[in-house]
Amino acid sequence: MSSKLIDRRDLEFLLYEVVKVQDLTGLPRFGDHSRETFDATLDTAESIAENYFAPSAATLDEHEPQFDAGEVKLRPEVHAALRQYYGSGFGAATQDYELGGMQLPFTVSVASKAIFSAANVSVLAYASLSGANANVIKNFACAELKEQYLAPLLDGRISGTMALTEPQAGSSLGDIRSTATLHADGVYRLVGQKIFISGGDHDLGENIVHLVLARIKDAPAGVKGLSLFLVPKFLPGADGQPGPRNDVHLAGLIHKMGYRGTTSTLLSFGEQGGAVAYLLGEPQRGLAYMFQMMNEARIGVGVGAVALGYTAYLHALDYARERPQGRHPACKDATSAPLAIIEHADVRRMLLASKSYVEGALCLSLFGASLVDLKANSDDDAERERSALLLEILTPVLKSWPSKYCLEANSLAIQVHGGYGYTREYPVERMYRDNRLNPIHEGTEGIQSMDLLGRKVLMREGRAFTVLCEAIDQTLQASDAYPALAEFRGRLAEVLALLKRTTQSLLELAAKVPTELYLANSSLYLEAFGHTVVAWMWLKQAIAAESSQRRDNFTRGKIQACQYFYRWELSKVERACALLSVNDDTCYAMADECF
Amino acid sequence: MSSKLIDRRDLEFLLYEVVKVQDLTGLPRFGDHSRETFDATLDTAESIAENYFAPSAATLDEHEPQFDAGEVKLRPEVHAALRQYYGSGFGAATQDYELGGMQLPFTVSVASKAIFSAANVSVLAYASLSGANANVIKNFACAELKEQYLAPLLDGRISGTMALTEPQAGSSLGDIRSTATLHADGVYRLVGQKIFISGGDHDLGENIVHLVLARIKDAPAGVKGLSLFLVPKFLPGADGQPGPRNDVHLAGLIHKMGYRGTTSTLLSFGEQGGAVAYLLGEPQRGLAYMFQMMNEARIGVGVGAVALGYTAYLHALDYARERPQGRHPACKDATSAPLAIIEHADVRRMLLASKSYVEGALCLSLFGASLVDLKANSDDDAERERSALLLEILTPVLKSWPSKYCLEANSLAIQVHGGYGYTREYPVERMYRDNRLNPIHEGTEGIQSMDLLGRKVLMREGRAFTVLCEAIDQTLQASDAYPALAEFRGRLAEVLALLKRTTQSLLELAAKVPTELYLANSSLYLEAFGHTVVAWMWLKQAIAAESSQRRDNFTRGKIQACQYFYRWELSKVERACALLSVNDDTCYAMADECF
Repeated sequence: MSSKLIDRRDLEFLLYEVVKVQDLTGLPRFGDHSRETFDATLDTAESIAENYFAPSAATLDEHEPQFDAGEVKLRPEVHAALRQYYGSGFGAATQDYELGGMQLPFTVSVASKAIFSAANVSVLAYASLSGANANVIKNFACAELKEQYLAPLLDGRISGTMALTEPQAGSSLGDIRSTATLHADGVYRLVGQKIFISGGDHDLGENIVHLVLARIKDAPAGVKGLSLFLVPKFLPGADGQPGPRNDVHLAGLIHKMGYRGTTSTLLSFGEQGGAVAYLLGEPQRGLAYMFQMMNEARIGVGVGAVALGYTAYLHALDYARERPQGRHPACKDATSAPLAIIEHADVRRMLLASKSYVEGALCLSLFGASLVDLKANSDDDAERERSALLLEILTPVLKSWPSKYCLEANSLAIQVHGGYGYTREYPVERMYRDNRLNPIHEGTEGIQSMDLLGRKVLMREGRAFTVLCEAIDQTLQASDAYPALAEFRGRLAEVLALLKRTTQSLLELAAKVPTELYLANSSLYLEAFGHTVVAWMWLKQAIAAESSQRRDNFTRGKIQACQYFYRWELSKVERACALLSVNDDTCYAMADECF
Repeated sequence: MSSKLIDRRDLEFLLYEVVKVQDLTGLPRFGDHSRETFDATLDTAESIAENYFAPSAATLDEHEPQFDAGEVKLRPEVHAALRQYYGSGFGAATQDYELGGMQLPFTVSVASKAIFSAANVSVLAYASLSGANANVIKNFACAELKEQYLAPLLDGRISGTMALTEPQAGSSLGDIRSTATLHADGVYRLVGQKIFISGGDHDLGENIVHLVLARIKDAPAGVKGLSLFLVPKFLPGADGQPGPRNDVHLAGLIHKMGYRGTTSTLLSFGEQGGAVAYLLGEPQRGLAYMFQMMNEARIGVGVGAVALGYTAYLHALDYARERPQGRHPACKDATSAPLAIIEHADVRRMLLASKSYVEGALCLSLFGASLVDLKANSDDDAERERSALLLEILTPVLKSWPSKYCLEANSLAIQVHGGYGYTREYPVERMYRDNRLNPIHEGTEGIQSMDLLGRKVLMREGRAFTVLCEAIDQTLQASDAYPALAEFRGRLAEVLALLKRTTQSLLELAAKVPTELYLANSSLYLEAFGHTVVAWMWLKQAIAAESSQRRDNFTRGKIQACQYFYRWELSKVERACALLSVNDDTCYAMADECF
């Protein structure tokens, strides 16, 4: 296979030599697994991705879903790709055996999702949403709802959505106005509007199950008053099959910059009196339920961003090797053959920058995913706690760092292609457009930075931050065995110390000033923190490369990309910390009327 | 007018208080002009831009020109907008009176182009290309060709293109293969293919005049063998009107990420034996002729990039003031009214960053344009020479800095809009897509950086660089009168000294190592140099703000944006110089096979 999706050698290097996912097979839940079953999963994912996902990516971008008699009809390519996906069990891959699952580690499923996303992120979105939806139902729904909806969500017979956002409220979920009223029949009726609902209507499968955040009539204002409801498109029929239409309707389609193959909708609930809605779990626990899914959802966004940057990088690399153009600056012989553009230093710079972003981010995503596995399945209490804390504090970075820097890899891929990259004849401009969504949804960059500095750094008296610093220290110690890594070790130690000092000074500030001022420069903190974490990921990779059995061009490339990140990127930490340490108020103090 | 194109107060501040374009009216060429005529020009530009350019921007993006029986038909909105543009004399604004022009300073015409570009860059492109084409013909064509084509190009009866790029050669013009052969009738016949030719075919006006770089049969290889030809779509008819079709044909349309209203074409010359082609000026001087236009063309790209970033910033600012969402982090009252999002510190950060980019870049563009005016028209020999040198060394920055940083403003404008910014309901995603062309065409970022370090810094034993440093020093001295600017003065002096030291060390390196190695990190040099220059532009603005008669929110905003640039951005100079000073070879040494 020509795979320009995710480099397989790299994926295996990260899984087995850096994150060491094979160690998970020692845990009871994954006892039937082995490197062989993981590799077979990746083989199948690659095969389906290349044959059923990738071929329609450009077509779906060009031919957005349209209204068709009040409903959305998806192209046959989407149906075909998802048939393969579910047919091979990817819909339930991480689930328990008794749910028809494979008990695959989440880490390996994230690796396979990277492959599918690189091939066609718009198609995978339908399956990802259904999977997240199924997890909420599995964890919080009553036995009856589970019985009815869980299995078909996992095998692709029905689909699911997450219906949180409302037009007037955006990210401010506390301002949600959708209202559910309990009727005499013991069932709620829901009224309201939801926007940006991906997969809100289509003709995949037999039914669509919307998970809707709404306020039960007379519940308190704000996020604490929100409950979670299950609202099916078709109500249960007499025979257990989908029956009559529920009162939820497609009110409009959102036309986007990218991600066009995933239909995004405006949904109207209860225009004809009220949509039948089943309460999930306890009333007023809606946001808590959603937030328990949030870590995985945010890792999902992160890995999607990685995949789009990664495949664009591979396309750019391929183009740079194939495209002859120009000569070295000193060459005066106009009749000499042109060089492949990868020979030009500035093209190499763009490729190496991209490599440092996408491979650093893929390592981060897989490492983050391994924390999900360990948190739930480790047989060591301390490791479970440590993993849970690390996961909490890393989640904002897992979501936002790839969304920012792998998007930059997309832009660089366009630049490497030159004029051709700006045309729709090449896929790199589409990949940029697709990826531009990721810094926005599932909590914008700004929201992630406030989550990091406002919640995660403070949580349990800074325990999560301490655990992170300890984990980085461990890697620093491990790197002691490799003299070739001295430069990186010294630099990461320096940067980590700076981050600790800055964090300390911010915590002191937090005690003295209003929260608003403490959080005013949180984007700088996210930058310093994120780059330190990714430098850590690169040191892990450098150690694995140095200790690898196979010392070759691949491992040399890893060291060089690590060097790029340390020398060319890491000074951003100093820049950010310098501004944070003086509590610079340039942005905070800018008055509206002075713009 | 609601103008979200270019802020008029800012434009006048930059023109009259910073660049002091009114001083040009003391020169003979501009003797009939005054601030009143300049303002009237801007009024007319705003009125046409708002009423005829802006309304069709989204439509032209959605409905790209299509093949229609082998030709391109443009929508009526394009015809109508250009009728207004030419009808008001903008086609010939800077030209001599005897050519029907207004002898308007180039600086003021650049200001008006910013307004048109902000409204609809795709429509302006047709006029800009014709204008550049006319200038080449005016300067280098023989009397007969001038007689035939110049006046109709300036009044919009015919259009022009620049046909340089070929599919196999891209930016490497020395590899151009198009060939012209002199026939017995004393006229050349041209054969070859040209790609990415904007406006290569359409139904505007009576004819299209292509300026084509080609090699006369048996001319030497490389750029030195290139000649410039005029190839009309329709040959001259008996009555002086366009006559029979020439042998140039539309071979394909390029479908782009943005800039979709400007048709981009693949043109085939001579498929039926050879296109009639008139030699412009001397043989083998083609590239030299094109390069004499290059400074203005590159300023044109720069100001187009500014305009797209600027209008997106104004849209984001407007949205941020209108959109209520969320509350301050410390607010616990869920029933309180949501704030306009401009109240959120991170939104202010994005807006202030954008302001520092787009207003800094607009100042740079207008300052650069004023050098074109002074170089050609100053009555002081020394000032003409100084302006010419400054223009040479600043041209790579004039082109590339806005293309990079105003594009970033476009991305930030999407981010400020959140999910809505990602939809095609709002114009900001289109503006991003339009602007993404600018780091690519008219010499990519990489090419600009090599032009700067490989040619401009070295030219005349570093004389251009010296002149630039002197000019910055003058501004530093002028700032002495304003104690409030001490921080900026100190910082710019520091950064300038660093840039000088780094430049000196690079020049020493150049004498020792191969050119290829000397130029390997030229992108870093462009970054350090560009940010120093824009910091200079901001100090100029800060001085004007401090010395302004009107001290108000506008001037306070200028100081705050200047502070943002100095505190949040300028450390990029140190980062770049640190890598340059050790001649870091991370990218240079990365072998192809290690990727």
